[in-house]
Amino acid sequence: MCRWNAYLGQPLLIGELLYRTKHGLIDESLHSRMGAETTNGDGFGVGWYGIADRTVPARYRSVNPAWNDVNLRELADHIESPLFLAHIRAAIGSPVQQTNCHPFRHGRWLFVHNGMIAGFQALHRDLLLAVDPSLFDGIAGSADSEVLLHLALSFGLEADPLGGMERAVGFVEEKARERGVENAVQMTVGISDGERVWAVRYSSAHESRSLFLSEDVDALRRLHPDNPRLQQLTEGDRVVVSEPLADLPGAWIEVPESTAVLLEDGGYEQRTFKPC
Amino acid sequence: MCRWNAYLGQPLLIGELLYRTKHGLIDESLHSRMGAETTNGDGFGVGWYGIADRTVPARYRSVNPAWNDVNLRELADHIESPLFLAHIRAAIGSPVQQTNCHPFRHGRWLFVHNGMIAGFQALHRDLLLAVDPSLFDGIAGSADSEVLLHLALSFGLEADPLGGMERAVGFVEEKARERGVENAVQMTVGISDGERVWAVRYSSAHESRSLFLSEDVDALRRLHPDNPRLQQLTEGDRVVVSEPLADLPGAWIEVPESTAVLLEDGGYEQRTFKPC
Amino acid sequence: MCRWNAYLGQPLLIGELLYRTKHGLIDESLHSRMGAETTNGDGFGVGWYGIADRTVPARYRSVNPAWNDVNLRELADHIESPLFLAHIRAAIGSPVQQTNCHPFRHGRWLFVHNGMIAGFQALHRDLLLAVDPSLFDGIAGSADSEVLLHLALSFGLEADPLGGMERAVGFVEEKARERGVENAVQMTVGISDGERVWAVRYSSAHESRSLFLSEDVDALRRLHPDNPRLQQLTEGDRVVVSEPLADLPGAWIEVPESTAVLLEDGGYEQRTFKPC
Amino acid sequence: MCRWNAYLGQPLLIGELLYRTKHGLIDESLHSRMGAETTNGDGFGVGWYGIADRTVPARYRSVNPAWNDVNLRELADHIESPLFLAHIRAAIGSPVQQTNCHPFRHGRWLFVHNGMIAGFQALHRDLLLAVDPSLFDGIAGSADSEVLLHLALSFGLEADPLGGMERAVGFVEEKARERGVENAVQMTVGISDGERVWAVRYSSAHESRSLFLSEDVDALRRLHPDNPRLQQLTEGDRVVVSEPLADLPGAWIEVPESTAVLLEDGGYEQRTFKPC
Repeated sequence: MCRWNAYLGQPLLIGELLYRTKHGLIDESLHSRMGAETTNGDGFGVGWYGIADRTVPARYRSVNPAWNDVNLRELADHIESPLFLAHIRAAIGSPVQQTNCHPFRHGRWLFVHNGMIAGFQALHRDLLLAVDPSLFDGIAGSADSEVLLHLALSFGLEADPLGGMERAVGFVEEKARERGVENAVQMTVGISDGERVWAVRYSSAHESRSLFLSEDVDALRRLHPDNPRLQQLTEGDRVVVSEPLADLPGAWIEVPESTAVLLEDGGYEQRTFKPC
Repeated sequence: MCRWNAYLGQPLLIGELLYRTKHGLIDESLHSRMGAETTNGDGFGVGWYGIADRTVPARYRSVNPAWNDVNLRELADHIESPLFLAHIRAAIGSPVQQTNCHPFRHGRWLFVHNGMIAGFQALHRDLLLAVDPSLFDGIAGSADSEVLLHLALSFGLEADPLGGMERAVGFVEEKARERGVENAVQMTVGISDGERVWAVRYSSAHESRSLFLSEDVDALRRLHPDNPRLQQLTEGDRVVVSEPLADLPGAWIEVPESTAVLLEDGGYEQRTFKPC
Repeated sequence: MCRWNAYLGQPLLIGELLYRTKHGLIDESLHSRMGAETTNGDGFGVGWYGIADRTVPARYRSVNPAWNDVNLRELADHIESPLFLAHIRAAIGSPVQQTNCHPFRHGRWLFVHNGMIAGFQALHRDLLLAVDPSLFDGIAGSADSEVLLHLALSFGLEADPLGGMERAVGFVEEKARERGVENAVQMTVGISDGERVWAVRYSSAHESRSLFLSEDVDALRRLHPDNPRLQQLTEGDRVVVSEPLADLPGAWIEVPESTAVLLEDGGYEQRTFKPC
Repeated sequence: MCRWNAYLGQPLLIGELLYRTKHGLIDESLHSRMGAETTNGDGFGVGWYGIADRTVPARYRSVNPAWNDVNLRELADHIESPLFLAHIRAAIGSPVQQTNCHPFRHGRWLFVHNGMIAGFQALHRDLLLAVDPSLFDGIAGSADSEVLLHLALSFGLEADPLGGMERAVGFVEEKARERGVENAVQMTVGISDGERVWAVRYSSAHESRSLFLSEDVDALRRLHPDNPRLQQLTEGDRVVVSEPLADLPGAWIEVPESTAVLLEDGGYEQRTFKPC
């Protein structure tokens, strides 16, 4: 059910994180350790903000497995970004097609999701109906994740990202209960407007997928002594990952259950995530 | 805006029609003469019924251009069928992905469409809402054609194919008018249940895309004197095509405007198509 | 480094073997137990002989992972064949492209390979030069396996399949030694002319990848009591597999090291495989 | 048989040239006016040099038609480059696969080709044998164009681009004549090392495909008065195109038959191209 990474800091070649870390996202696509599946080979996507302009994120998405996509390697080796999100997919139901690959995008916003809406097939129509009609045509694919984003947008994500997401999750849980589906939401999500990153770990059953935050930049440097680019990272450069890039005591902060983290200006803060 | 073919008759190698006719569908994918576009390279699909079992049609669909798809050639050269529909796509709006490739399928039914719903982006939500909730999750893609089929199913296509389609088209035209869109529907469609083929030529503006019916089997034989398989066709084997497979006086019957044709048991009949 | 299956017997829906066995090839594509890799997601292919005509095998090959290819499932559920080979790929070096997907084909011959030629990059040119010039243009891709087949064809495979293969392997080992590469060949291969199947297990280091033969048809039946189609198999229907379709004492014969098996007319015989 | 563009000048968004010109390469992919085919839909590629580093060009290549590739549009709208080559393919023989898409690359060199080697199937082996063994494994695909590049590299392209190309073409013509193939080479090629662009128009029969050079920057500006980015082009920014981006008297210099042009430092010079 997918894995993802986010990076926020000084401009970094995307490939440093994806390919040249011990257990980066490309390695996870074949050998996920903490995911619901070992293999995440049903497409992938990267969304990044430019160095000069952070208002219009670019995307590269493909239905190929991330590990064998030649273009991803090319791009990752040539594109620098101060803020990017990458996602690998293990499809559970919806078709393997580009429009179902993350990150999803709305204006300056990017969104990645690891998890699922249980019973989505039965809920799909109800949830679509609750999407604001003005946002309806922004839904290009058929994935539960894209609907979740558009619900959050409908419930105010742009003005209040965590509030919008809490209301969207609460709504999904309520609709699911009406149809007899318990524990409807399983998710870690990453959200960005180009300046900040919100990372949420939540599931209705309080058994959420794994999510970690890099403790500090020293951690990333110590983890990869042979990677000269990563050695240049400085205070405040930070990653959020579904799985630690490598094992190292003190390097990673596990995001607690039902918790949202906001990364901004080199620091971060966290608060409870409570659907309503 | 697409082109299509249908064949009904004694079992025939699919490739005889697609590749080994003068102006078959593969040639049309590059060199359409009567279509809205010369090139129909945004994916394709073939749906066929088996010789022994006509209740579960098979499909092969791909986002490749039909002219360069190696697998299509392989399959067309090895699969015989007494009834098949083939479609090449020129996308106008919805993504190039397998779930937007025709034929669409519902149980034993196959459906191909050449044309469009004008202003679909604005109408999409309204039309989806009118699809019977029990059919909603059968919509896998985002094409207007697939919604049109599911509207027709909602309005009774399985019991009364032409009636269901007339009501669906009428509904679309009405919803479009409400939003100020005139001449909403442009279509030729092919529908089959494995035994019969319904072919409809209609557009709200009465300027419909081209559609032809083979006059009789002699026509097909005379058109391709060097094709031994086509020489074996007998009375009642028939094709419906967006564009004639070759020029020959008397070989083709142009389906009139606002007309539906039913092919069955070696014969055919036609009647007016009148949305309601 | 790939996994494969072959079936020889009364006509069978391809999907019965691929999808509706306990540990069929589709399952192996995600969860190989005995392969060099767990995941075999770098494309796949199926080659099959027709019921009426066994002289021109058909192929469907794709770069998608087998587990998520919708067309494979469609075809497997509609195509019956008395003899087919299926292969899933884990690429090690050569690009993920259709022309590198097995089975390779030459006239009526199909060929699948699990394994590799060590140091192929350095040997590639020498080996290509040894391919008979009349066969040279049959090489469409860049995989070591395809070169191996064309060497075997150059060394007489069509007249003497095992002899041709032994000479090809011997030649590769010799050329490799000249360049200081020991243990050049790792392989299990499946070869068919539409009537018979040759299966070989061999590696220069005598540590070959796994290969099994179904003991008898009772085994297949007992393994899948709930599969009505497999219940209809009769004496002499047989499969060769990289990995057993399920665990059952007595059901599987492991092909010994350096051994070739010939399946024909419901029976089989084996002999030593000795490169020369 | 393909079309291509090259740009050399101040950093420019790739998309300005590909999408936001009157008859850019994306338009040519569907509506080529001067090419051997109207449609160039068998894959495409873009190679670009970075603003900071011109030693390692990046590539994005795909088998999709350029006109419907969503990722190409994304990248073209976000990547700026002072020197890039773009190519759209109409395959004539070799498979539609990424490794057959241009630009081909060797170290810092990029290479695009419009045209063909006549009788390539018969010549393929001989030509491959003439490639320097040290370069042999750089050939990843099966296209005649890639072999031509590697012959030119074998004959000294890196030290003397035009000399290397002349010797390569002369060699091909000679080998072709030995096999009774006259007029073996048809080509326009674009070659770059990241600093300069060489453009050659040549064919053995002296009936070469079209090739044009922008007269001066004023031309590009006048052609697109509504494109603010193109208005900012200055003296010395220049494009080479298979087909003019728009009709405008004096805007385009047709490269003469059997002629090579070198673009460098804002100026250009031309000389006769004479295979030897």
